[in-house]
Amino acid sequence: MTNTQIALIQIDNYGPWTTTPEPRREVDLQTLQSRLYADVSQLVGNREGYAFFARFDNLVTVTNGLDREAHRLIQTSLANRYPVTASISIGVDPLPIEALGAASRGLQEAGSAQDSKRREILSGEPLSEDDRTDEDLQIAHFDVNNATEKYTDELNEFDTFINIEQGYAELMRHMRMAHDSLSFFVGGDNVIAVCSGMDKSDYHETIEHVRDAVDVDLKVGVGRARTAQQAGMEAKHALEECRENGSLVELGW
Amino acid sequence: MTNTQIALIQIDNYGPWTTTPEPRREVDLQTLQSRLYADVSQLVGNREGYAFFARFDNLVTVTNGLDREAHRLIQTSLANRYPVTASISIGVDPLPIEALGAASRGLQEAGSAQDSKRREILSGEPLSEDDRTDEDLQIAHFDVNNATEKYTDELNEFDTFINIEQGYAELMRHMRMAHDSLSFFVGGDNVIAVCSGMDKSDYHETIEHVRDAVDVDLKVGVGRARTAQQAGMEAKHALEECRENGSLVELGW
Amino acid sequence: MTNTQIALIQIDNYGPWTTTPEPRREVDLQTLQSRLYADVSQLVGNREGYAFFARFDNLVTVTNGLDREAHRLIQTSLANRYPVTASISIGVDPLPIEALGAASRGLQEAGSAQDSKRREILSGEPLSEDDRTDEDLQIAHFDVNNATEKYTDELNEFDTFINIEQGYAELMRHMRMAHDSLSFFVGGDNVIAVCSGMDKSDYHETIEHVRDAVDVDLKVGVGRARTAQQAGMEAKHALEECRENGSLVELGW
Amino acid sequence: MTNTQIALIQIDNYGPWTTTPEPRREVDLQTLQSRLYADVSQLVGNREGYAFFARFDNLVTVTNGLDREAHRLIQTSLANRYPVTASISIGVDPLPIEALGAASRGLQEAGSAQDSKRREILSGEPLSEDDRTDEDLQIAHFDVNNATEKYTDELNEFDTFINIEQGYAELMRHMRMAHDSLSFFVGGDNVIAVCSGMDKSDYHETIEHVRDAVDVDLKVGVGRARTAQQAGMEAKHALEECRENGSLVELGW
Repeated sequence: MTNTQIALIQIDNYGPWTTTPEPRREVDLQTLQSRLYADVSQLVGNREGYAFFARFDNLVTVTNGLDREAHRLIQTSLANRYPVTASISIGVDPLPIEALGAASRGLQEAGSAQDSKRREILSGEPLSEDDRTDEDLQIAHFDVNNATEKYTDELNEFDTFINIEQGYAELMRHMRMAHDSLSFFVGGDNVIAVCSGMDKSDYHETIEHVRDAVDVDLKVGVGRARTAQQAGMEAKHALEECRENGSLVELGW
Repeated sequence: MTNTQIALIQIDNYGPWTTTPEPRREVDLQTLQSRLYADVSQLVGNREGYAFFARFDNLVTVTNGLDREAHRLIQTSLANRYPVTASISIGVDPLPIEALGAASRGLQEAGSAQDSKRREILSGEPLSEDDRTDEDLQIAHFDVNNATEKYTDELNEFDTFINIEQGYAELMRHMRMAHDSLSFFVGGDNVIAVCSGMDKSDYHETIEHVRDAVDVDLKVGVGRARTAQQAGMEAKHALEECRENGSLVELGW
Repeated sequence: MTNTQIALIQIDNYGPWTTTPEPRREVDLQTLQSRLYADVSQLVGNREGYAFFARFDNLVTVTNGLDREAHRLIQTSLANRYPVTASISIGVDPLPIEALGAASRGLQEAGSAQDSKRREILSGEPLSEDDRTDEDLQIAHFDVNNATEKYTDELNEFDTFINIEQGYAELMRHMRMAHDSLSFFVGGDNVIAVCSGMDKSDYHETIEHVRDAVDVDLKVGVGRARTAQQAGMEAKHALEECRENGSLVELGW
Repeated sequence: MTNTQIALIQIDNYGPWTTTPEPRREVDLQTLQSRLYADVSQLVGNREGYAFFARFDNLVTVTNGLDREAHRLIQTSLANRYPVTASISIGVDPLPIEALGAASRGLQEAGSAQDSKRREILSGEPLSEDDRTDEDLQIAHFDVNNATEKYTDELNEFDTFINIEQGYAELMRHMRMAHDSLSFFVGGDNVIAVCSGMDKSDYHETIEHVRDAVDVDLKVGVGRARTAQQAGMEAKHALEECRENGSLVELGW
């Protein structure tokens, strides 16, 4: 059974900051957001976690293996190097959507995202070492079948993008509704999901659902391990097997 | 009338690179993609352009004001600092979707995105100085009405994300189909669009369409200028007026 | 005759910032300083200039080709993305040391580096286009003869470092005293100098001086052009000729 | 008694890479070097270590607390995100200069820095947990007395720089020769040293030596702990005490 530790990282007072005293140059905001995310990816990844950019002012990270101190270090490091600060809220639950729900509530209770007085909250309790198992994380790595042949080398890039975006939107909604799982577009034609204890038929069902709903063909590799990094790497290898075997679903265990 | 110069920047052979000789750590790929995009944002922004991350291995940039040499410099700079190279294709057209179409075709004619021999193509012709006018770019900056009150401070972050994603997916499709325009999610609850010569009623119609289709409420500020930076900044100020006036559509000119 | 435009970039109030409210983590300060410098290098380099890290809180840049607006853009971009701001002062003179002197005075007149009220000064006048010539910049690229064979592959890394540091210290002092030129260590065993109108015998004399004073053997390639980038690249190619010919001084023109 | 673990990080084949097929743009090399160092600072700092830029193609890091796996992770992460790779060699010794000597030899035995076939060596043995104590690291943080008043706000920036460089050169040599310690300029007017078990009189003696030799006045705060981060932070606080008390040497324990 999975047991997901989600740390929601929210930039404090970001909306107002981007327009005070005047609206700031968009190219600089994009650079700031992307680099802050890139740094969070390294800080979390250095300890076997995963980080997803989601909305950029709200980053969703999987931090099984990081203790409270490690989360505080992320905050301190960002505050030392960026013109903004971040609040972090940790939630733990067998169901990823519930873990994120607990994390969201922790932040909301501490104060509004645009409350200029709310700064650098650190809320929630990480999993204790004794409670961790080798099945805590289940990570699925989806990609679109033959995207390059079908889309990238044929269509207008924006129409390729629209197709992939539709596929992602449908996948993200179904995985959340039917499987309590969180899915994130990670570039190219790839989506990585933090899953509940789904089995092979659940993945086949999900792939069929997306094909029927929006006519986008997916395949998926799945991994299961103690940390997001290990589970995710197992999922990448399983996806390679899909490519070699021509299969749609491969589990790494 | 608008005249949009789009430069499509595509990382050469990226899919194979990410899995050769073995799949690479996801947190490192995310860091690489985000920082490469952040750098492109600065390189383009330094000359009044705009850059959108789109799919990260394919970046869509608006480069009115950059000549061929300036595009080549972007390529050289990336090749000197990253473990990958990029091909760039320029397209120009009054309709943004057509400009991107021309750019896409330029790349496709040069070879597949996964052709290991295709490297650092530079294709297409930028607008000559004589052909540029102060109305070349029309940039629209959309955001979700009261997102923080309605979503961020109330819902589970993922459900907020799903709502915003749905709003974006519907907006991006409608703007492309009905108005030949390109829309990009840029973080938070914001979408920036590179528009054709849309007028106030076109924006009202678009906002109603999205409300009817997915029940997401948008407002928009629009700017028009010689460069993306100028038009985009005018759009940001117009959006501030929406916030002050309680209006849904404000044009900066 | 040379005509050097130096822009001195000084981080406002940095000393106090690094220790307020508490001393900040050294690894974060190093990351901040290095990345801010890396960004300045790109912003200046995007317009054919050069940037040297010098003391990191004071960066020395060569900005022939950048107008006042371009300098202001550097300030704005840094202020949008870093937790500190920077003041910039421009000085122009045939002698590099005098150009930097003028730039330094411009900043000092505006207020102390640790004056918490002094923020984002932009002082001084860039060269006007009409006054620019193809001989404005003379850039010299020195390196240590056979450093890898003699030092890196033989000695303790710190003793190699001490040797190179001694060589640099002597070169920097002599070039300033005897030739009004500014020299900067740029990594490895390389030093780049912004020179006055030195000729071949001046470079031979300098190399002998350093050999006699600290027993370090240098060779040098020199370039001359309208911008730092062009002159510097010519110098690099001239240094390659030294390597091929076994000579100690090569001029690119 | 101190017990220093030094990991020397050397970029493989860098000299040839910077000039092949042609010399690369200096501003891009500077950006690459600085960012790679900034990342190493974060990777090492994330585990309580310290990193010094030294010559940029050779980085000296203090890695007490990092095991072999953690060093390998640094290599993998750099290889995934930069166009170069790095070899790492670990040395441990009570005397910092000897630890670096052991690390240097480890690399030299594996092959030349410019051997195109030598890639990603990982050599040497980290301290085992059982052998670590709370006195393993002694870090000293020097700065120049009244540098801003005496230099920055009065002199030409380059002459300030020359003074600080002379002070550093003398300090680095004396600390190595007389105290087997490694000193690194870290920006501004600051030098951080990785020390052997020096006592208060050793620091006073060192400060007098530098004053007599080059007429530069230093003060110093010193810390002692299990990791570089802890010892370094204690040193920073001790330096603050110097500022408050007007003293020249303060020990944190």
